[in-house]
Amino acid sequence: MKYKIYIVGKIKEKYYKEAIKEYSKRLSRYCKIELIERKNIDYIKKDLTDKTHVILINTSGNQLTSVELSNKINTLAVGGKSDISIIYTNEKIDYNEHISIAGIEMNESLAITLIYEQIYRGYRILNNEPYHK
Amino acid sequence: MKYKIYIVGKIKEKYYKEAIKEYSKRLSRYCKIELIERKNIDYIKKDLTDKTHVILINTSGNQLTSVELSNKINTLAVGGKSDISIIYTNEKIDYNEHISIAGIEMNESLAITLIYEQIYRGYRILNNEPYHK
Repeated sequence: MKYKIYIVGKIKEKYYKEAIKEYSKRLSRYCKIELIERKNIDYIKKDLTDKTHVILINTSGNQLTSVELSNKINTLAVGGKSDISIIYTNEKIDYNEHISIAGIEMNESLAITLIYEQIYRGYRILNNEPYHK
Repeated sequence: MKYKIYIVGKIKEKYYKEAIKEYSKRLSRYCKIELIERKNIDYIKKDLTDKTHVILINTSGNQLTSVELSNKINTLAVGGKSDISIIYTNEKIDYNEHISIAGIEMNESLAITLIYEQIYRGYRILNNEPYHK
């Protein structure tokens, strides 16, 4: 599986950059994951192809638990979807799925950190591995 | 208002320590806030007095939005509650309120970071101040 995590703008806070780096490192055992920062939503749209499975994340999506997220990852993998783009935005964009990671507004960089952490948690659950940290 | 944020255990990740430090600094304009790490739940219980307003946070509580949290802070302040202990645990403890910050399981240090961020966000909303970061 190859994930692209898109945001409009940049992760500015050093501590969230570090957290994302750490989760990326841990996730490298399970998948490819890349953070892509774009100036505006149109640049993101240009990156998407017909093969991209687009998951839009914002607070108005359906809230998933960690277990539901791990099931979703599994379903996508089994279904042969390998090119997953996760787009965190409130702007209008065509999507295949629309979910919420936490049903609340929060700092964008913190939300991206949480998305990484939940994907990592999802893989740990999928692989029946303990999740302590 | 004086907040004590309790956890059983320690924040180990440097990046979450840094994030919490940053939110503590920003919150110092509005309130006193202190992170208290205790070895076990009994040590936390010993710290609580009759005057302490105890808010238990875990995923089974009522989920609050940032605006609801800011209203809660306001109500507590207006009601003269000044000694607020927020306890993040799944263990059994007597409480005045039981809420959830995000309805999902996540890394504990990340959850504490999110609690700080949401309190900061709550104060920004209460004071009609812009919240960009």
